[in-house]
Amino acid sequence: MPEENAEVGGYVNLGFARVDIDRMRRCGFPEVIFGAGKTAVEVLSIAREILAHDPVLLISRANGEQRAVIEAEWPEARWHERAKCITIERNPLPRMKGIVAVVCAGTSDLPVAEEAAITLEVFGSNVIRITDVGVAGIHRLLAVRDQLEACSVIVVAAGMEGALPSAVAGLVSKPVIAVPTSVGYGASFGGLAALLGMLNSCGSGVTVVNIDNGFGAAYAAAQINRLIEH
Amino acid sequence: MPEENAEVGGYVNLGFARVDIDRMRRCGFPEVIFGAGKTAVEVLSIAREILAHDPVLLISRANGEQRAVIEAEWPEARWHERAKCITIERNPLPRMKGIVAVVCAGTSDLPVAEEAAITLEVFGSNVIRITDVGVAGIHRLLAVRDQLEACSVIVVAAGMEGALPSAVAGLVSKPVIAVPTSVGYGASFGGLAALLGMLNSCGSGVTVVNIDNGFGAAYAAAQINRLIEH
Amino acid sequence: MPEENAEVGGYVNLGFARVDIDRMRRCGFPEVIFGAGKTAVEVLSIAREILAHDPVLLISRANGEQRAVIEAEWPEARWHERAKCITIERNPLPRMKGIVAVVCAGTSDLPVAEEAAITLEVFGSNVIRITDVGVAGIHRLLAVRDQLEACSVIVVAAGMEGALPSAVAGLVSKPVIAVPTSVGYGASFGGLAALLGMLNSCGSGVTVVNIDNGFGAAYAAAQINRLIEH
Amino acid sequence: MPEENAEVGGYVNLGFARVDIDRMRRCGFPEVIFGAGKTAVEVLSIAREILAHDPVLLISRANGEQRAVIEAEWPEARWHERAKCITIERNPLPRMKGIVAVVCAGTSDLPVAEEAAITLEVFGSNVIRITDVGVAGIHRLLAVRDQLEACSVIVVAAGMEGALPSAVAGLVSKPVIAVPTSVGYGASFGGLAALLGMLNSCGSGVTVVNIDNGFGAAYAAAQINRLIEH
Amino acid sequence: MPEENAEVGGYVNLGFARVDIDRMRRCGFPEVIFGAGKTAVEVLSIAREILAHDPVLLISRANGEQRAVIEAEWPEARWHERAKCITIERNPLPRMKGIVAVVCAGTSDLPVAEEAAITLEVFGSNVIRITDVGVAGIHRLLAVRDQLEACSVIVVAAGMEGALPSAVAGLVSKPVIAVPTSVGYGASFGGLAALLGMLNSCGSGVTVVNIDNGFGAAYAAAQINRLIEH
Amino acid sequence: MPEENAEVGGYVNLGFARVDIDRMRRCGFPEVIFGAGKTAVEVLSIAREILAHDPVLLISRANGEQRAVIEAEWPEARWHERAKCITIERNPLPRMKGIVAVVCAGTSDLPVAEEAAITLEVFGSNVIRITDVGVAGIHRLLAVRDQLEACSVIVVAAGMEGALPSAVAGLVSKPVIAVPTSVGYGASFGGLAALLGMLNSCGSGVTVVNIDNGFGAAYAAAQINRLIEH
Amino acid sequence: MPEENAEVGGYVNLGFARVDIDRMRRCGFPEVIFGAGKTAVEVLSIAREILAHDPVLLISRANGEQRAVIEAEWPEARWHERAKCITIERNPLPRMKGIVAVVCAGTSDLPVAEEAAITLEVFGSNVIRITDVGVAGIHRLLAVRDQLEACSVIVVAAGMEGALPSAVAGLVSKPVIAVPTSVGYGASFGGLAALLGMLNSCGSGVTVVNIDNGFGAAYAAAQINRLIEH
Amino acid sequence: MPEENAEVGGYVNLGFARVDIDRMRRCGFPEVIFGAGKTAVEVLSIAREILAHDPVLLISRANGEQRAVIEAEWPEARWHERAKCITIERNPLPRMKGIVAVVCAGTSDLPVAEEAAITLEVFGSNVIRITDVGVAGIHRLLAVRDQLEACSVIVVAAGMEGALPSAVAGLVSKPVIAVPTSVGYGASFGGLAALLGMLNSCGSGVTVVNIDNGFGAAYAAAQINRLIEH
Repeated sequence: MPEENAEVGGYVNLGFARVDIDRMRRCGFPEVIFGAGKTAVEVLSIAREILAHDPVLLISRANGEQRAVIEAEWPEARWHERAKCITIERNPLPRMKGIVAVVCAGTSDLPVAEEAAITLEVFGSNVIRITDVGVAGIHRLLAVRDQLEACSVIVVAAGMEGALPSAVAGLVSKPVIAVPTSVGYGASFGGLAALLGMLNSCGSGVTVVNIDNGFGAAYAAAQINRLIEH
Repeated sequence: MPEENAEVGGYVNLGFARVDIDRMRRCGFPEVIFGAGKTAVEVLSIAREILAHDPVLLISRANGEQRAVIEAEWPEARWHERAKCITIERNPLPRMKGIVAVVCAGTSDLPVAEEAAITLEVFGSNVIRITDVGVAGIHRLLAVRDQLEACSVIVVAAGMEGALPSAVAGLVSKPVIAVPTSVGYGASFGGLAALLGMLNSCGSGVTVVNIDNGFGAAYAAAQINRLIEH
Repeated sequence: MPEENAEVGGYVNLGFARVDIDRMRRCGFPEVIFGAGKTAVEVLSIAREILAHDPVLLISRANGEQRAVIEAEWPEARWHERAKCITIERNPLPRMKGIVAVVCAGTSDLPVAEEAAITLEVFGSNVIRITDVGVAGIHRLLAVRDQLEACSVIVVAAGMEGALPSAVAGLVSKPVIAVPTSVGYGASFGGLAALLGMLNSCGSGVTVVNIDNGFGAAYAAAQINRLIEH
Repeated sequence: MPEENAEVGGYVNLGFARVDIDRMRRCGFPEVIFGAGKTAVEVLSIAREILAHDPVLLISRANGEQRAVIEAEWPEARWHERAKCITIERNPLPRMKGIVAVVCAGTSDLPVAEEAAITLEVFGSNVIRITDVGVAGIHRLLAVRDQLEACSVIVVAAGMEGALPSAVAGLVSKPVIAVPTSVGYGASFGGLAALLGMLNSCGSGVTVVNIDNGFGAAYAAAQINRLIEH
Repeated sequence: MPEENAEVGGYVNLGFARVDIDRMRRCGFPEVIFGAGKTAVEVLSIAREILAHDPVLLISRANGEQRAVIEAEWPEARWHERAKCITIERNPLPRMKGIVAVVCAGTSDLPVAEEAAITLEVFGSNVIRITDVGVAGIHRLLAVRDQLEACSVIVVAAGMEGALPSAVAGLVSKPVIAVPTSVGYGASFGGLAALLGMLNSCGSGVTVVNIDNGFGAAYAAAQINRLIEH
Repeated sequence: MPEENAEVGGYVNLGFARVDIDRMRRCGFPEVIFGAGKTAVEVLSIAREILAHDPVLLISRANGEQRAVIEAEWPEARWHERAKCITIERNPLPRMKGIVAVVCAGTSDLPVAEEAAITLEVFGSNVIRITDVGVAGIHRLLAVRDQLEACSVIVVAAGMEGALPSAVAGLVSKPVIAVPTSVGYGASFGGLAALLGMLNSCGSGVTVVNIDNGFGAAYAAAQINRLIEH
Repeated sequence: MPEENAEVGGYVNLGFARVDIDRMRRCGFPEVIFGAGKTAVEVLSIAREILAHDPVLLISRANGEQRAVIEAEWPEARWHERAKCITIERNPLPRMKGIVAVVCAGTSDLPVAEEAAITLEVFGSNVIRITDVGVAGIHRLLAVRDQLEACSVIVVAAGMEGALPSAVAGLVSKPVIAVPTSVGYGASFGGLAALLGMLNSCGSGVTVVNIDNGFGAAYAAAQINRLIEH
Repeated sequence: MPEENAEVGGYVNLGFARVDIDRMRRCGFPEVIFGAGKTAVEVLSIAREILAHDPVLLISRANGEQRAVIEAEWPEARWHERAKCITIERNPLPRMKGIVAVVCAGTSDLPVAEEAAITLEVFGSNVIRITDVGVAGIHRLLAVRDQLEACSVIVVAAGMEGALPSAVAGLVSKPVIAVPTSVGYGASFGGLAALLGMLNSCGSGVTVVNIDNGFGAAYAAAQINRLIEH
């Protein structure tokens, strides 16, 4: 493999990973590191390549060891405790005009909601956070209806039966991206109940990402929010 | 089997069935015939035994053939088209004081809701029917809140994501019995999504019956409604 | 978010949670804290808000840390070891007339049954506990039949095949609320077998809550028991 | 394939099937034809081979066409309507000493129970049939306890929650073979609920066969019943 | 129910349905009729209410009977054979600026893709259809990359392993909405394999709707496409 | 509960458990303690009651703490390391005439097979153990065919695809009880693959118990083996 | 779409399909038509394109209508009844040196086995068919061991518990490709039991394709068989 | 069991295991030790038997303890950290002519890919490793197309949606063996999503092994690669 460490056709081959340094041009956002399952050294190596080519860095699902080596190399790195994310913003991406709402049904859904909010912010969106407005106390949701309608897109994280996105979608005209969380027990089956609930939403226009995938929901929301600029 | 057709220890043995003629005394409501999977002749035989001992008869999940033989023998039998039920009320059971609400999320949930309503009525409850108040148009539900609170127990039938019981339970102080329906497609998996949603309801006090089991929900509601009499 | 810590429209917004201080008026029972997944500090903050507005407090699925901070602030708090619950009864709720039976199939179902019993007691019901009367020794169940019939509602916790609620429902005229427990192994799939068994119960009128959800069963039972007062 | 239609090493190769004419010697019972999915002509060809070597023939899951060609060739063939079986007993197998009970929970379980009963009879067992003794009316089961204890082995067919085998196993000292049936709807998932219930039975010694597999339960019961002869 | 047929609080109560005539104001698109499971008469009644208040009508999952009564009343109604949709455009909604791509992996995914395309068109989007570009012949997808990038949002329908959205998302910067289809057999489990594949997509920003839910994907795409106008 | 600790109707009520001291008379074998999920003190209390009434004691799924308190009270207790069982044989049960074979497919299935073997021995059966004869080396199974045929019943433990019982059942005329084990990984889903394989066995007469339920298989085998005595 | 019907970049765009006329060069075998879900006219159009570029044509999962239009256009087309395939061999592909065995466990697995055999033959392999050698009569399999070892690769189709591939893989040194079939009932769950059994095979080197996917197994076998030529 | 430790009919009976010393002759590769679930002493005993009869030894899924005892006895043993394998090559197997590609979709799939690569090498294949070429950056895969086509067989490991094998199979003419990995979270369900994706691959000729079964894929690949020699 003579190509190792060389930039060939838009990627850098580190042997254990091919860093996609062409993403920013192709997809509009830089490559992101998914920390889970990688060693701290692997994360460091990939981070160096990304920061050599891209203006910002996001590491999601990071752990303490990864945080340590990153902070040692880049003191300006920021650790987001609830979201378990690391961000480095060398040259912050341009701010978008639209606002994104990140809503969650209960306190326990906060880590997932925060992963979404941090991702949105590092990718250039302004974020408004709305917490603990589950359908069992529907007055709490009705109270924030106008805040939601003023946003360009709404990310909704919910566990248990995952009913919140349906209620939100019925109240506003904006796209709703639903994130099922693994919050629950017994027949929630690790978030499956919420996932199925969201996929079967009677609220038109709800789209869904993987369980606990706050990053994915935020990425899609950022893509949508960016459209307003054009 | 010398005992056949004899009343031995509280049941009549017809060979293919042992009719529980002791239920009325033991459980407070008479035996009911579940029509599905039985021949018209079997239904007729069991019906004769029940009407020989009990004041009313309910046949659920009935088909046209069963309806024909029953109407031939008892012209006073009533056919309930949407609910696919047959009822005969020789001596109507005493009316209970409380009212039971039967609520459904969408038009397609009506057959299940009607099975519940008919069962409740033949067992002595007054019923109020509230249709098509799913969470995607939450204003429709808020408009009937006071009607619901005035009942002693609420049966809620919903398919798709099954979110309605959570919203109802958060609005009122009365017990909510949730019936998932098989309405939906794809990842509703024949009502599984609604069932899981209801089991994981964030609305305290929601209890659940089998998919499409309008009869079971009504039976439980009748048992509860009866408590007020005491 | 200027509304933080203010009572707006029936809730107190703590940022990470909106405490529903309107529940007692709306639903008849105060807000309850589900301890699992919350930090001790979060539980403490929510507890302060609830006790500022409501007469009693229940924290379910609590852990040792939560217990420590609660006991530090309110020495009168009671810890229920088997149920893993904390209760504080400033002004005990009025006692209801009816009695609720909490029945369990085996010794291993006791933690779930105790969560139900403690919830019922703090919400004003008198409780009778009946333990280890599974269907494999049906004489043990027959021996308590009259005790069960004397109650207004019966909570039945069972793991493995979850057959006990069917047998109970066939013996008495009172509503039966079934709680599948995660007791079992192999093809019990964490309580799924018991859950499916209860949903498919041949005993009319059995309603079901989530696996291990002793609290939910108790809440529904308390709602039902309260009806007798009217 | 020069071996076709020749007896090579204990089987006859018909091209589309290798008939195991060595089974009677090896396993003690002759080869049986599972009718489902075979053409009438295939069934006829296999039947000829079996009757050329074995004293009795059983065709399970047979349909009308298969019945027609079999009756055309062997007028002494018997059709069992409920069980959908065909039997031909050229030289009936010797009668065994023990009796086998075939019990079912409800009327709808009868076809499966009959498949078991017919299989047992053609394989030499005396059978006692006990119908409709489900756990929701436990007095019906207690009434037949002594009949059950007098048998050498008990086959129990039940759908819905499949609780009957547990109750039977707790009453007697004899082996219980449980057959889940596909009777039920919704969350019975075609017999899965009954199957899981039986596998998780709290009644010691319950063994289980496939859903609706009356033949398999009977075969095992016949093997067990035969042990008494030795 | 004195309110029947009256407009109360934003809906018309037909007894069997409450038509949400407030949707256009609240959500920006009119109410839509889901034909499956409704009688032709029910569809007709709801259609009359919608057309009395809204400029366009879409009936999805329609059948021949429904088509007949609709065409009898409104000769201008259009039937879309592959999509099984009926549309009536009294006052076509204003055309949006952005284009939406509707892509499908194989010929068999066309009905779902067409449901999406028709929905988008009646809701005011221009649509470009790209068919049969599954990943097993990746050159077919690469050939249309620029067409895709020129759109504002991309709907991708795919059955079997559902891999196409991942490949699309890796090529362009626009939001991708994935629709799993029930195309496949065996371990596709009615579209479950495609659904899981899309939820676990390695392509950032892919959001997912229910199996075969072309309408839902289109609704979300229309909401997104509309953002450009602002 | 005045009945506590008293023998009422065939059981002793310890509060947390009702010990079934009537089992030996009713079912022919004494009550057994399932150790998992019980405290050492609970196990000790139940053990005292059983030994006060029954000649032998078996504790399955025991842990080190339970072992310690049992050995402290009854030094003659035996610990079976691989099977995680404790046995005390005050008056060993009478030896049965028949032999039971306990067969396992691989080394990793041994703990389950040993639980079966120990149970059989304490219940009076002679056992022959045959290890590691999986179908991937079918010559190993053929070599022990005559040993198997000489037994009265055969217990077969196997994980992975669970194919061994089918092969055994095709070789001999004796009843085969199959125990799926949780041995395997990935798509074995904790023994589900083996369980389904055994339920669908093409080998006639195979009956199945729960995953890893060596005790249950042995109990059934002991019931069968006992029949020979009569 | 100006490109329609033109050959652009290796495919022909028919609007509803892009025929991959580059496959023969890229993958070594021509494009194949999967008939299920396509109209007869669509099949005809695609068939014309393939035969215009490739020497042979295979249509799998064909129905009577498709057969009619194909035979009308190409009288030399061959219909394979059991396999439901149509083949046209204008210029038969060169014969490969190796032989492929197609083995099936039971008569009901024949349609899947035949789909595999026909595919292999049209792609240039010589095939030996071995039928009904399931593990419940292992002597039937041992009798053909040498025939199997003489082949270069072995396709094994089996339903129910799917144990046959494990036994075959343990007897020979050649690659085994397992095809689970949907043969079975109850807990076979449409072939899932066989699929899981094969994936968990204790026989090293067994690889698996989708349920009933005889074509896929054959395609892989043909790829392997072709390697010998090089 | 007098046969213990003796070589009887091609295996050595160690009591807890029957070592298949006939495999090399029968299947062409020696017996392999699956370390998981075995004690270090058991592994050592089996290793001694294998090395007494076979030229090379592979222990997969090994742990530190097993490594310690093996290295103590055979200092030449090699430990493969990422793959968790131990290999001893007394007399390396002859090198095969063909090359096998081991491809993986992401960095996290490396442990599974390495298990495959090590297995292939110890069994005599030359291996080329290609890492991190998932479909979300399809240019990375296109860049290695010619390398892949030059191999005789390709092993592809991928988690998440498991789409890589489809893309590979569409690019080359060689057999593709897909290994789903358990990489992912939420609705990946421990590799189930990848497994289903691969089984439903639209890429003809993809065969699949169990989740994380790098060894199994390599074994099949080695069998195929060996065919070239003949």
